[in-house]
Amino acid sequence: QGILERLDAGEIVIGDGGFVFALEKRGYVKAGPWTPEATVEHPEAVRQLHREFLRAGANVLQTFTFYASEDKLQNRGNYVAEKITCQKVNEAACDIAREVANEGDALVAGGVSQTPSYLSCKDKTEVKAAFQQQLDVFMKKNVDFLIAEYFEHVEEAVWAVEVLKESGKPVAATMCIGPEGDMHGVSPGQCAVQLVKAGASIVGVNCHFDPETCLETVRLMKEGLQAAKLKAHLMSQPLAFHTPDCGKQGFIDLPEFPFGLEPRIVTRWDIQKYARKAYDLGIRFIGGCCGFEPYHIRAIAEELAPERGFLPEASEKHGSWGDSLSMHTKPWVRARARKEYWENLKPASGRPYCPSMSKPDGWGVTKGAKELMQQKEATTEQQLKDLFQKKKF
Amino acid sequence: QGILERLDAGEIVIGDGGFVFALEKRGYVKAGPWTPEATVEHPEAVRQLHREFLRAGANVLQTFTFYASEDKLQNRGNYVAEKITCQKVNEAACDIAREVANEGDALVAGGVSQTPSYLSCKDKTEVKAAFQQQLDVFMKKNVDFLIAEYFEHVEEAVWAVEVLKESGKPVAATMCIGPEGDMHGVSPGQCAVQLVKAGASIVGVNCHFDPETCLETVRLMKEGLQAAKLKAHLMSQPLAFHTPDCGKQGFIDLPEFPFGLEPRIVTRWDIQKYARKAYDLGIRFIGGCCGFEPYHIRAIAEELAPERGFLPEASEKHGSWGDSLSMHTKPWVRARARKEYWENLKPASGRPYCPSMSKPDGWGVTKGAKELMQQKEATTEQQLKDLFQKKKF
Amino acid sequence: QGILERLDAGEIVIGDGGFVFALEKRGYVKAGPWTPEATVEHPEAVRQLHREFLRAGANVLQTFTFYASEDKLQNRGNYVAEKITCQKVNEAACDIAREVANEGDALVAGGVSQTPSYLSCKDKTEVKAAFQQQLDVFMKKNVDFLIAEYFEHVEEAVWAVEVLKESGKPVAATMCIGPEGDMHGVSPGQCAVQLVKAGASIVGVNCHFDPETCLETVRLMKEGLQAAKLKAHLMSQPLAFHTPDCGKQGFIDLPEFPFGLEPRIVTRWDIQKYARKAYDLGIRFIGGCCGFEPYHIRAIAEELAPERGFLPEASEKHGSWGDSLSMHTKPWVRARARKEYWENLKPASGRPYCPSMSKPDGWGVTKGAKELMQQKEATTEQQLKDLFQKKKF
Amino acid sequence: QGILERLDAGEIVIGDGGFVFALEKRGYVKAGPWTPEATVEHPEAVRQLHREFLRAGANVLQTFTFYASEDKLQNRGNYVAEKITCQKVNEAACDIAREVANEGDALVAGGVSQTPSYLSCKDKTEVKAAFQQQLDVFMKKNVDFLIAEYFEHVEEAVWAVEVLKESGKPVAATMCIGPEGDMHGVSPGQCAVQLVKAGASIVGVNCHFDPETCLETVRLMKEGLQAAKLKAHLMSQPLAFHTPDCGKQGFIDLPEFPFGLEPRIVTRWDIQKYARKAYDLGIRFIGGCCGFEPYHIRAIAEELAPERGFLPEASEKHGSWGDSLSMHTKPWVRARARKEYWENLKPASGRPYCPSMSKPDGWGVTKGAKELMQQKEATTEQQLKDLFQKKKF
Repeated sequence: QGILERLDAGEIVIGDGGFVFALEKRGYVKAGPWTPEATVEHPEAVRQLHREFLRAGANVLQTFTFYASEDKLQNRGNYVAEKITCQKVNEAACDIAREVANEGDALVAGGVSQTPSYLSCKDKTEVKAAFQQQLDVFMKKNVDFLIAEYFEHVEEAVWAVEVLKESGKPVAATMCIGPEGDMHGVSPGQCAVQLVKAGASIVGVNCHFDPETCLETVRLMKEGLQAAKLKAHLMSQPLAFHTPDCGKQGFIDLPEFPFGLEPRIVTRWDIQKYARKAYDLGIRFIGGCCGFEPYHIRAIAEELAPERGFLPEASEKHGSWGDSLSMHTKPWVRARARKEYWENLKPASGRPYCPSMSKPDGWGVTKGAKELMQQKEATTEQQLKDLFQKKKF
Repeated sequence: QGILERLDAGEIVIGDGGFVFALEKRGYVKAGPWTPEATVEHPEAVRQLHREFLRAGANVLQTFTFYASEDKLQNRGNYVAEKITCQKVNEAACDIAREVANEGDALVAGGVSQTPSYLSCKDKTEVKAAFQQQLDVFMKKNVDFLIAEYFEHVEEAVWAVEVLKESGKPVAATMCIGPEGDMHGVSPGQCAVQLVKAGASIVGVNCHFDPETCLETVRLMKEGLQAAKLKAHLMSQPLAFHTPDCGKQGFIDLPEFPFGLEPRIVTRWDIQKYARKAYDLGIRFIGGCCGFEPYHIRAIAEELAPERGFLPEASEKHGSWGDSLSMHTKPWVRARARKEYWENLKPASGRPYCPSMSKPDGWGVTKGAKELMQQKEATTEQQLKDLFQKKKF
Repeated sequence: QGILERLDAGEIVIGDGGFVFALEKRGYVKAGPWTPEATVEHPEAVRQLHREFLRAGANVLQTFTFYASEDKLQNRGNYVAEKITCQKVNEAACDIAREVANEGDALVAGGVSQTPSYLSCKDKTEVKAAFQQQLDVFMKKNVDFLIAEYFEHVEEAVWAVEVLKESGKPVAATMCIGPEGDMHGVSPGQCAVQLVKAGASIVGVNCHFDPETCLETVRLMKEGLQAAKLKAHLMSQPLAFHTPDCGKQGFIDLPEFPFGLEPRIVTRWDIQKYARKAYDLGIRFIGGCCGFEPYHIRAIAEELAPERGFLPEASEKHGSWGDSLSMHTKPWVRARARKEYWENLKPASGRPYCPSMSKPDGWGVTKGAKELMQQKEATTEQQLKDLFQKKKF
Repeated sequence: QGILERLDAGEIVIGDGGFVFALEKRGYVKAGPWTPEATVEHPEAVRQLHREFLRAGANVLQTFTFYASEDKLQNRGNYVAEKITCQKVNEAACDIAREVANEGDALVAGGVSQTPSYLSCKDKTEVKAAFQQQLDVFMKKNVDFLIAEYFEHVEEAVWAVEVLKESGKPVAATMCIGPEGDMHGVSPGQCAVQLVKAGASIVGVNCHFDPETCLETVRLMKEGLQAAKLKAHLMSQPLAFHTPDCGKQGFIDLPEFPFGLEPRIVTRWDIQKYARKAYDLGIRFIGGCCGFEPYHIRAIAEELAPERGFLPEASEKHGSWGDSLSMHTKPWVRARARKEYWENLKPASGRPYCPSMSKPDGWGVTKGAKELMQQKEATTEQQLKDLFQKKKF
């Protein structure tokens, strides 16, 4: 059954977790450019991660094609491998996802994300061409449906949906925005309305913010759709990091991004709360983004097992709410084998010399950043300032 | 070249990371019993993790045989699969480790750890038989050397070394103790002396405490050996969790163990400091235990690259000290591409409602635990109390 | 010169600090009923605190008549002393304030605050009578001006202003609200407009929130007045506690209120930032409320000394920005004798087992509170519930 | 009854709190030189603070003669007022203390503390002369007993005791050391033994460390005395700041000293725990030092009321364990009127951007401090270095 058949029937669809962060920690992806050529260079590592998400309960395997548009790969200059073309990267991503999806009951979703072309003010035709190039691969490899994700500007997201929609496949669209809306100031509600009007059947958010913030953003999207009398399925794929302190552009601006986020990683119990809250809000496509490891996805599946009627395969190696501790030799560890314990635990950081929250960096926020900037490529700098003035950033 | 040739020549040997925690998050191991039968059930998952550690720079691949002694497997009652014998688990572990070791320049180490037989006061013969059974497999599979690790009582560790030593292979021995010494009150220095006298060529600590605490313990071992005019190589494989607040028995007693440790996870920069400090202390076998993911092992290899003269394979996907951010579109993120930034960052937890440290649980510490305990299997309880009186616990 | 002459001339007027909290710590006031009869029982203690605020730079001494209305005193049941009448308490408060004001260049302000009569739904006439009774004393004792402060409902504050205005003396009015507005949902801007229309020449906020939050509320008041084309002087007297985590009703609902607020106490440097920010916002009557000790008021006077041209008397015993440490025997303590040091210090709590923020209690928030409540006076409870339904609470 | 009669009879004697910190906040004492001339300049302020401690339950009023030796006053150079002689300061301190003591049942204790003469390596005769000069005043004013307090070196403390002992009055002696002992490395146990042998009837610690640390130090003193078969009464007067993170020289080296210590201030409930623990340890002279406000002293008196059989005067304005909240209008605030609530509260700092602990500064610890130092008076610097080499610092 396709994604829309499932959602229309009221099923809960569980998404997968975050590939770039997980593969960076495993040694296959470089932070910053977030090198998608891992699909060609180390297919076994990508395959294994897909498999773990499948076992954890994911019903959707997204092709690992984040930042895999032609312009992004070229943009990375020296990073891009000569013989690994954009097409090869995207094809390999589709093949691997399909291979693993066939091991279980999962759909393959081809994904596109925001492009440097848009950011550098290329026109609509050029930006759409970048999406079309990836779509051609997805159609050739016959993915089950399409996701336009990680967009900071609804304008570009709408262009992406327009391109994808032409394929005839169902289209989902998620933006990496918070309750304040997109980078041009369009509210979440308005973003949702524009995406649905452009042809998206499923809308929501992904990345940039923690579960709680993402749910608030989806709530605002839902309100916008209701006010406009539009119908769509809702979707959320947040970070697995606590980010109560971040500003409009999310975790990128936190001083800990991307190499010091460890103390912010959410627990499986945080995810169970998220899954329940997402469900109660009417979201039926529930997954994760950066930071989500297989056990986080499993936590979604376990929390919603009563509604779904079954547990995922990986729950064979997991007791409900710490149940596997009930045989521990120490009585005080056995005493942790209960829901109430983990639900109420306020976990310590073990870092008494560190604060609880950080001030986000950002344009105009940190003098230090500005000064450092001035010692660097002035050309690029000027280009950036121009972009800022054009309100594209 | 064997382990001793390398160490004797002054080489730095990098160990691997923690299997049970990493595979638990990936969905293949159950916390509590820490099910080693994953080697039989899901060899591809174990193989992939070995491979990631190898790519990250590990020179030693330990067989995934933790808690894989016959008595431990039986002890787990309903958990243990009928047809997956102790022998099969251990053999598969050896085969997988060897297969991956052959992909690079790594040694395979067969590992044994503390047994329920010792804890329940079985005699020396019986405890040694458990080790012998695993050793038989290691010899059949011809591992390169042997590690007796995760011992809380030096008495049992000495028995293990005595068994392993019979094989003629080099033997390393690490205890999961802190500066206060073993559970019977034997100091780290005395533990080291006894282990070397029993035949260990390499001694040190693993698990239970954070890098800083482990290094302090190894320092005490070194002092003990010097005082006794004994020679041995030093080794450390700590947790990748910050645990300044734990008591004598380490992180097991922290309320966050094992499902709420996320905010304590160390960063790669913490590990670089650890690697440097370990090196300066004279430790030449440097690895990790629970919590160590492949990128933590890579951080050891990168910190010590000047001394070793080369980087590990996985550093292709990692810039030194955040270097890969130097192309980021945001100037304040580019400003993070420098050593000084990450070295001095005090990462926030994003958890303002949580404390920095916890009071460890423990016998007699928490009334709540005691009361809960009384509602449970009194028989087991009595047995435990008996053990306490016998000072085995 | 009177208060309005000073403010009209552009002078900065410094208010005093918090009496009930300071005198509670000194042993003269009971937390909860906040017993104002200290003016009769221990005039020397009240006098000394006035004097300290005067020395610290206060230009206004408020009579210690908080919670000193007839209905409030009676309401306290067994607490109220038989022979200490409402009139005596208020008269003594005026006498003490005047005595100390005459020691320097300060004005005496008679103060009224919200009444139990309003909370229990008495009609306008009855509530106004309570204010009139206190006003009669203030007129007899000829205070310099009047302050209606600590009102959660603008309706009652307007009634107070109407009564006070009849006297012909200048009237200031401050509400204990945050940016969300009063308990009936009237916005800060609207509150300010209503108060000015009722006759207040000075409007602003006091108590319930930390300096930063109070300034945001005054900013909204300022905007409201500008939109309505009304003119008034602005005033702020916040808490000297950090309360980023409190809800609509401020610090009362924080679990630490009132006996565990110590770790939230602001430093003198926090106050200097507050004073500067208040000044920049156009506020010219700048003081403090609960938690403000004499040294906090001195910090206002020191920060604004460049604008005012002089330092307060108590600065004889205080160096600017830690200057008095420049003779310390330890070089690292001498190194603290500079502005940059104290401005950037992030002071540690010394409490690693405590969190940074708390969840506020509140109606419907804490099950525990509800249950405890049910074990108590049901009659009072019913009365309270009735009040809630009438939206007075 | 004198101090020894009371202690010998098994009575609990409650000390007073900290004068320099309290008067600094009130505007009468300058931090750094901690100007004791307040007794001459503002006797009413000193008198009021004595009175508050008396009302809070103090049985001993210490003359405010801290840092009031001739050499210390001269050392302060420009700070010292010309016409306010050492003698006048000490005489006024005695007169004020006696005046207030007569208002209740309190003893007056004349106090001496460590001298700059000792620190700058003057000989025994010269150092003793400084103590003698103060003692002459104490004898003329006929104080009830004598306290030698705030000594970092037991050698100097012994000299002080020797001088004071000559008077025939009872002598108490407290050092400002932690469990690591004095600045020359003499252990707490040895310090206690030397002080008792020199003639002290009461020994213990004051200042520099938090209650918990001080009690541990007194415990070590007690052990030392027992081992030496010496008898003495025990005394403790700790800081009212949490300082789990400080080094050998206590809170002086914490970056927050002395103007950013607010988040470390202990609650009244912390003090009740301290009082109970001190009592259980056998300490019978229980008071406080820097940071102790009157309500902290009252907390000692309230905790030990069952043993003493009465409450202090100031308890009229304080309910036991938050009892005064039982009439609050909000049910969730009423729910705080119980011991269990306050005993278990982990108070939040309201400072999510601040850490829980700090690294102490210190010689050789902070490069920044060293560099700053070099920009300052080199002469003084050299003198300091000399002192360090002579191990006096």
